[in-house]
Amino acid sequence: MNAELARRVAAIGDVVGPEAAAASRELLAPLHETPPYHGVAVVRDAAYGPHERHRLDVFTPGGGRDLPVVVFVHGGGFVAGDKCAEGTPYHDNVGLWAARSGMVGVTMNYRLAPEHRWPSGAQDVGAAVAWLAAHAGEHGGDPARIVLMGSSAGATHVAGYAGTASPDPGVRAIVLLSGAYDLELFDPAILEPYFGSDREVLRSASPLAGLVDAGLPVLFAVAEHDPDISHRQAAALFDALFGRDGRVPPMAFLPGHNHFTEVLHLNAVDDVLGRQLVAFVEQHAGPVAAGSAAASAAA
Amino acid sequence: MNAELARRVAAIGDVVGPEAAAASRELLAPLHETPPYHGVAVVRDAAYGPHERHRLDVFTPGGGRDLPVVVFVHGGGFVAGDKCAEGTPYHDNVGLWAARSGMVGVTMNYRLAPEHRWPSGAQDVGAAVAWLAAHAGEHGGDPARIVLMGSSAGATHVAGYAGTASPDPGVRAIVLLSGAYDLELFDPAILEPYFGSDREVLRSASPLAGLVDAGLPVLFAVAEHDPDISHRQAAALFDALFGRDGRVPPMAFLPGHNHFTEVLHLNAVDDVLGRQLVAFVEQHAGPVAAGSAAASAAA
Repeated sequence: MNAELARRVAAIGDVVGPEAAAASRELLAPLHETPPYHGVAVVRDAAYGPHERHRLDVFTPGGGRDLPVVVFVHGGGFVAGDKCAEGTPYHDNVGLWAARSGMVGVTMNYRLAPEHRWPSGAQDVGAAVAWLAAHAGEHGGDPARIVLMGSSAGATHVAGYAGTASPDPGVRAIVLLSGAYDLELFDPAILEPYFGSDREVLRSASPLAGLVDAGLPVLFAVAEHDPDISHRQAAALFDALFGRDGRVPPMAFLPGHNHFTEVLHLNAVDDVLGRQLVAFVEQHAGPVAAGSAAASAAA
Repeated sequence: MNAELARRVAAIGDVVGPEAAAASRELLAPLHETPPYHGVAVVRDAAYGPHERHRLDVFTPGGGRDLPVVVFVHGGGFVAGDKCAEGTPYHDNVGLWAARSGMVGVTMNYRLAPEHRWPSGAQDVGAAVAWLAAHAGEHGGDPARIVLMGSSAGATHVAGYAGTASPDPGVRAIVLLSGAYDLELFDPAILEPYFGSDREVLRSASPLAGLVDAGLPVLFAVAEHDPDISHRQAAALFDALFGRDGRVPPMAFLPGHNHFTEVLHLNAVDDVLGRQLVAFVEQHAGPVAAGSAAASAAA
């Protein structure tokens, strides 16, 4: 990220809310590619379950076969968000980033609160994985090499799936971008629509302990301009994983980014996260397609 | 780092010692440039003090003026190491990395234990900074934009200088690569020649508390294949800085690297650390030279 862009992101503030989200989206929008997406096959709205939110999009680089699959689970405070917001580059940008990095990218919707409450989000992540186990091969992906990546509430769902269910053996690793893991340390107002406000439920629904027990490789990220509460969650995750392993866990500190640009910049701004993600995928889920931009850059 | 190189680094093991150091040096040596270094002016053995180890080398990109200055302080267990090991690319590689990234690179020697004990190393870092305050301009550097970067024992000296002295106001930030900060948690055998073995001395010589109080911006790194003891130090630094700020501190987790390749790969293997270092320097010490390779890559 260049200095001017860093200044503009910093000017938005270390805050999370509709205005900061909109400002972040607008700031980066001109830097993104627009459809049609050259060299990437996109399949829209595959149904991985019966609900209208049980839909996912698949991005496959031309000619790709048996590639690692990165599944992106969006944020939105448990009550909002979309895999593909009409007329914006988001979150096609994540699917495109994966495809242009030599992987299959999947962006998924899931059921939202307050109609659908805990653990529907984690269940939907599991249902999408089950769909991929049957169908990834049709889209150039290897169902035995899946990496789940969630942002914000999506990271909480990914962590919940990895920690409380028996994750599908095809899931090789997970990536958590600025999520909530220890719910008792998080903002109750954000959690209430999905988890309710019973402290005992918050304790048992916290994905942190299960995540640590599950032992799946975790890469987590926090942005310089994330709010304090996200930094606290990242520190809790750091401490829990260091406490388990006696080793510093793989993590990405993202200078210059905020809670939103952490995801929104993928496929637009050359930065440390994309490169670190590809290295993490290759380490745990095997090689990306040879000759992709990221594979070359990482060589 | 590509997969084959990652495999070879991993095969060395998560260990620190002469064999691991030699194997790491040999592994990366063929990837480095050799003299003469095109486009970089190198001044050797400038005397920043009276001792024969008070010598530093300066690497300036062609035509550079008023650039940020990165001062590299090597490791070697407090008893060994050199800014420039004859017939090897090390640590010219760090000076060259800085110059090719649009900065002035300085590699420095310092007095060694057991002849010279605590706090001679931190004092020598201060003497080199004082020399730069007077002479950086002659070499294209801006003495008001200095970043200190130490590796292993060198990181302990940098942390000691930053924390226990009144650092020169030209020092804008520090970078700590796999050092010892809380000496009571470190290996007494490694510390003994320089610090002695009195626990009260180890407590008062530990740079961690002073570093946290000093408030200089810190970027710290730990390598995936660092030994447990280095991970423990990184975690102690993480906890101390998080405890102070309530924010996750800037850090770099280096996948695929060990205690040695963390430094030895600079200027040879395109990787996440160099890019994160340039971003950190630009954030705290202002812009690097326009048109440098790193400035373009980071844009």
